[in-house]
Amino acid sequence: MSLAFTLTATDGAARTGVLQTAHGEIDTPVFMPVGTAGTVKAMTADAVRATGAHIVLGNTYHLMLRPTAERIARLGGLHRFMDWPGPILTDSGGFQVMSLAKLRQIDAEGVTFQSHIDGSKHRLTPARSIEIQHLLDSTITMALDECTPFPATPEQARQSLDLSMRWAALSKQAFTPRSGYGLFGIVQGSIYPGLRVRSAAALTAIGFDGYAIGGLAVGEGQSAMFETLDVTVPHLPTDRPRYLMGVGTPDDIVGAVARGIDMFDCVIPTRSGRTARAYIASGTLNLRNARFADDAQPLEPDCPCPCCTRHSRAYLHHLFKAEEILGPMLLTWHNVSYYQRLMHDLRAAIRAGRLAAHSAALRAAWAPCEESA
Amino acid sequence: MSLAFTLTATDGAARTGVLQTAHGEIDTPVFMPVGTAGTVKAMTADAVRATGAHIVLGNTYHLMLRPTAERIARLGGLHRFMDWPGPILTDSGGFQVMSLAKLRQIDAEGVTFQSHIDGSKHRLTPARSIEIQHLLDSTITMALDECTPFPATPEQARQSLDLSMRWAALSKQAFTPRSGYGLFGIVQGSIYPGLRVRSAAALTAIGFDGYAIGGLAVGEGQSAMFETLDVTVPHLPTDRPRYLMGVGTPDDIVGAVARGIDMFDCVIPTRSGRTARAYIASGTLNLRNARFADDAQPLEPDCPCPCCTRHSRAYLHHLFKAEEILGPMLLTWHNVSYYQRLMHDLRAAIRAGRLAAHSAALRAAWAPCEESA
Repeated sequence: MSLAFTLTATDGAARTGVLQTAHGEIDTPVFMPVGTAGTVKAMTADAVRATGAHIVLGNTYHLMLRPTAERIARLGGLHRFMDWPGPILTDSGGFQVMSLAKLRQIDAEGVTFQSHIDGSKHRLTPARSIEIQHLLDSTITMALDECTPFPATPEQARQSLDLSMRWAALSKQAFTPRSGYGLFGIVQGSIYPGLRVRSAAALTAIGFDGYAIGGLAVGEGQSAMFETLDVTVPHLPTDRPRYLMGVGTPDDIVGAVARGIDMFDCVIPTRSGRTARAYIASGTLNLRNARFADDAQPLEPDCPCPCCTRHSRAYLHHLFKAEEILGPMLLTWHNVSYYQRLMHDLRAAIRAGRLAAHSAALRAAWAPCEESA
Repeated sequence: MSLAFTLTATDGAARTGVLQTAHGEIDTPVFMPVGTAGTVKAMTADAVRATGAHIVLGNTYHLMLRPTAERIARLGGLHRFMDWPGPILTDSGGFQVMSLAKLRQIDAEGVTFQSHIDGSKHRLTPARSIEIQHLLDSTITMALDECTPFPATPEQARQSLDLSMRWAALSKQAFTPRSGYGLFGIVQGSIYPGLRVRSAAALTAIGFDGYAIGGLAVGEGQSAMFETLDVTVPHLPTDRPRYLMGVGTPDDIVGAVARGIDMFDCVIPTRSGRTARAYIASGTLNLRNARFADDAQPLEPDCPCPCCTRHSRAYLHHLFKAEEILGPMLLTWHNVSYYQRLMHDLRAAIRAGRLAAHSAALRAAWAPCEESA
């Protein structure tokens, strides 16, 4: 394998590990902040590093359209472009073509679509997706798949899965292995256990550096997601990292870690940071709420981020009311920091063999002050 | 005097000095980044400090409306609120009431206006302006004045000046001197030398910790501004700091420093940072211009700011095209850093007695690549 992955502890189905890449080591379970267009929104790369993040995610769809993969390659690759010498995982572009592009038509060989930016026409095939990710110098490349829409009938899910498995094989063919770089396949199959098992088997037969679970967090709900993990994870190789795509809330992550997931990405901490929603140990807060106008407390007393060590909730409230850029800047920093501390503490709990108790304590603390978004 | 000011060198009319305040020392000539609503827009306080800024400006009009001066006082003052323990100068609110409030009516005692935010009705008098600035814990308080509109007839300018001088006396009465805190008066008189001289004499008779020159950079043009400085500055006390309000471009500042000005504030570096306009040693650049799309150079090779040490012009171009918040964040940081280096180098040139040669070299470097805004 091109990516060395060493398990360091287990606690039930949960595990900690170290993933060694050409751009540095990643302690798992890990949360990857999303850097869609070559920037984790509203954060400098230094700030992202300061939160303890080991790896960030880049989006092939956005980057292929602007500034283009070829331009980033000419400029020395995505790491240099965005000042992130650490590991970068890029998605395949498929998910966002389906959800963001203007007109898209899928066929057996790939997908043709119009840019949401300027309407220009583009085509993405397994080989082209791999080529783009190579141009970006992605540390972890994702195979092109079709993210099966939800809900899907068993027959729809099966057809979609068959397409994704064919594309997975084509992606593997197109990928040139290099030491410290890896290619991940993506398990599909909607909420149908039989299809998930079949997908896991198909991907394992092809052989990947890691296995992602896609097509979840798309409206099926947390319990269906967890049930799907329960039937899928046991069919994935134990010696390879497992990545649950696009997940999720802290509660989703805690439940998925307990089910053996090693990697996560989600826009929640960054998007919430721009919309005044704070993640703290006792739940979430909407900082636009008038009750924070005179609140001299830090957002979270024990948080080491500058948002919490330097400012009051009243200041954050003021910044969001006044629509000052510093509001999103500070709160994104905090939320990403919160997610990194969450993962750090989960890793420590697994190593100590007390994940169940730790998770129960987290959940007990969240409930009391949860606000609606 | 409540603010000790020590001249350390002179070069023609230009001088360097140290202003000692309750919140730290300020080397002059100094440029004060504008922190209108309790934040230098798009920068953390740490970033502002990293540029070498000694003092920032806060706006009474914005802060009295939101979050209110009383709230900031309850929260421990503006320094604590915005994480800026260093000196803060606040304006009187008058200028922005005139330009931003919805309906404003001026009378002999003050000005009544409606908030541009919610239409609520407010009144600002000399005593109330001083009280607000005291609640904010402003290091340097400005007297309330009427910024004479431009153009104004001699008679209009005289009437406006008389009002401002009366308000200056009332501001002085309302201000409680404290060690390390100061009150500045503001010279008005439009572009009429006789009125400027009369205003300077009236303020000097009242006695202030520093003297601002207001009513310039309002459309009169650089040469009229410099001519007004030439006739005004000689009538101000040499042992007190002189502050040219709302100025300006680097070229404006170089010319005003040569005429004996010690302090400046302007939104140019911050506003330009949000609109893709970069200030560099060779002039200004519009980073949205397509010619930067593949430009791998740093914005300015010798600049120590993270924008220049970590990224290419191509990356900045991309961020502005993609409307990423990081674009304004990085470019504001750079522009404020540029202005601080400009002031640092002007101080060094004055100390070395080579301001004229230094200024000529700056101007020669700017011309070639100047772009229109």
